[in-house]
Amino acid sequence: MSASGEGARGEPPLPSWNEGPTKQSIIDFVRGVTKTGDPRFVKPEERIAVFDNDGTLWSEMPAYFQLAFVFDRVKALAPQHPEWKDKPLYAAVLGGDLKTVAAGGLRGLLELATITHAGMTTDDFSKIVEDWIATARHPEFNRPYTELIFQPMLELLAYLRAHDFKTYIVSGGGIEFMRVWADKVYGIPPEQVIGSSIVTKFEMLAGVPVLTRLPELNFMDDNAGKPVAINMHIGRRPIAAFGNSDGDLQMLQWTTAGNGSRFGLLVHHTDSEREYAYERSPLGTLDKALTEAEAKGWTVVDMKQDWKCVYPFETKG
Amino acid sequence: MSASGEGARGEPPLPSWNEGPTKQSIIDFVRGVTKTGDPRFVKPEERIAVFDNDGTLWSEMPAYFQLAFVFDRVKALAPQHPEWKDKPLYAAVLGGDLKTVAAGGLRGLLELATITHAGMTTDDFSKIVEDWIATARHPEFNRPYTELIFQPMLELLAYLRAHDFKTYIVSGGGIEFMRVWADKVYGIPPEQVIGSSIVTKFEMLAGVPVLTRLPELNFMDDNAGKPVAINMHIGRRPIAAFGNSDGDLQMLQWTTAGNGSRFGLLVHHTDSEREYAYERSPLGTLDKALTEAEAKGWTVVDMKQDWKCVYPFETKG
Repeated sequence: MSASGEGARGEPPLPSWNEGPTKQSIIDFVRGVTKTGDPRFVKPEERIAVFDNDGTLWSEMPAYFQLAFVFDRVKALAPQHPEWKDKPLYAAVLGGDLKTVAAGGLRGLLELATITHAGMTTDDFSKIVEDWIATARHPEFNRPYTELIFQPMLELLAYLRAHDFKTYIVSGGGIEFMRVWADKVYGIPPEQVIGSSIVTKFEMLAGVPVLTRLPELNFMDDNAGKPVAINMHIGRRPIAAFGNSDGDLQMLQWTTAGNGSRFGLLVHHTDSEREYAYERSPLGTLDKALTEAEAKGWTVVDMKQDWKCVYPFETKG
Repeated sequence: MSASGEGARGEPPLPSWNEGPTKQSIIDFVRGVTKTGDPRFVKPEERIAVFDNDGTLWSEMPAYFQLAFVFDRVKALAPQHPEWKDKPLYAAVLGGDLKTVAAGGLRGLLELATITHAGMTTDDFSKIVEDWIATARHPEFNRPYTELIFQPMLELLAYLRAHDFKTYIVSGGGIEFMRVWADKVYGIPPEQVIGSSIVTKFEMLAGVPVLTRLPELNFMDDNAGKPVAINMHIGRRPIAAFGNSDGDLQMLQWTTAGNGSRFGLLVHHTDSEREYAYERSPLGTLDKALTEAEAKGWTVVDMKQDWKCVYPFETKG
């Protein structure tokens, strides 16, 4: 990850962002809240910035990356579950019949995620994710998923942190799925990763205390759940929020409705060549949030226009 | 709060702790985990210390301080609830009949807490707590509750932080009750306060996004709930845990069962003159944890023997 603290070594900030109003809106906001004596000044401990993950920090096409993990888990666990062959949803995953899987909707996917993410300790689950993320490849880019992160957003994270912001992930993805690699990939430590979760239970196994993961949804960190989770985990209202879909709308509303200087930003996927161009992902939509962005003056990133490069590997020739 | 980073100004650490094995065990642990090259060394980002609050950082007698808040809330809300006069539990609170209240047990108290802590936005609730904590007085000491904090524990918090520990509260008390004053009183910011909670709901009130508190328990952060909450909020296993009752047992088990250098400590209330002497509080017991402390080599603070002073005001003559 390349740091880009403005002035740190005299480098201009956000090198992968093209000059223009988008980049300027970020720089103006950061300058205002960090300038002592400025009416927009915000104390360092209150400089909280929250980032959605899927579609905001890394890609989410052709489907949420965690879904590939879910499907791979179904396949890995299938030998222990002969009964899955007779369950249409599981049989569809095993047979690669994504149309039937999609027909099961969010509910079906949640069931698959819950079932395949449970039945082991938290430590064992972390190891499973660690192994998977190190070996799995994106079906179209044929690269590890952790390479399909957005270089301009990495620079933005570093720029904010160089100005004493605390950066958080607030994602519909699994909290324990993301925590395994978020520190290495984004520089965001486990305690600053917030996500959806299943229930865990403390118990003694042969005299050793463990946390066992149960096949039961605990919290869905999406839509109206995002401000609720922010309040629960952080206990402060962020001053900046970054998202890319209607699932981030309430987080942006909550963040930008606070007093003083606030910043909201949406990543609009407009680049069919370097990434993807869409306003609808298989599970998400950018519609209401885009309308509200205009009304509220949130920044909208036009990926094609505003970003010099999308992925870190593009710059490594 | 007086800081006491060892060597910071050449001051010896933990000045309110008497010399002896208790104090020495703390210093030995901190020296080990902070000394580069030592096999006990722990990287700064993994130096997580968790503290129970009631009976560990401040007193909890004659009853948990938050209960006084609950009772005051019942009284303040009674005029809007004429029906409470006919409900035995509420009538008992209003009539000062603590015996009947106690007979309702934890379940009754939880109901009272849930009802009186709900029905407003999170911002409004914070204001209510802020006003209460500024004006309420302890029935025996006749001082603000925030003065009945333990000076030796303040020094311990500061000592750990001076050695790059991140200090967290993990308490059965209300998360939003504690966050209002924990930063000012203990130097622990909102995002490092973990506690019990009721459900909050995001909604729009006249176009303004708010989080409304509902009369429904969300999470009970006690006993086996503590390691679950630690995992949810921090996502790392702490290396040091501090408690005073069986409600902290699982937190200490979970913390000290990790690999490498670990530290567990129990505060034993043995000082009937300066504070209180008990192994049973109205809602908590120190029994199993004391037995396990001996077996596991956890440090047990004998408040009367180990602490030069209990409260900060004692030293201010």
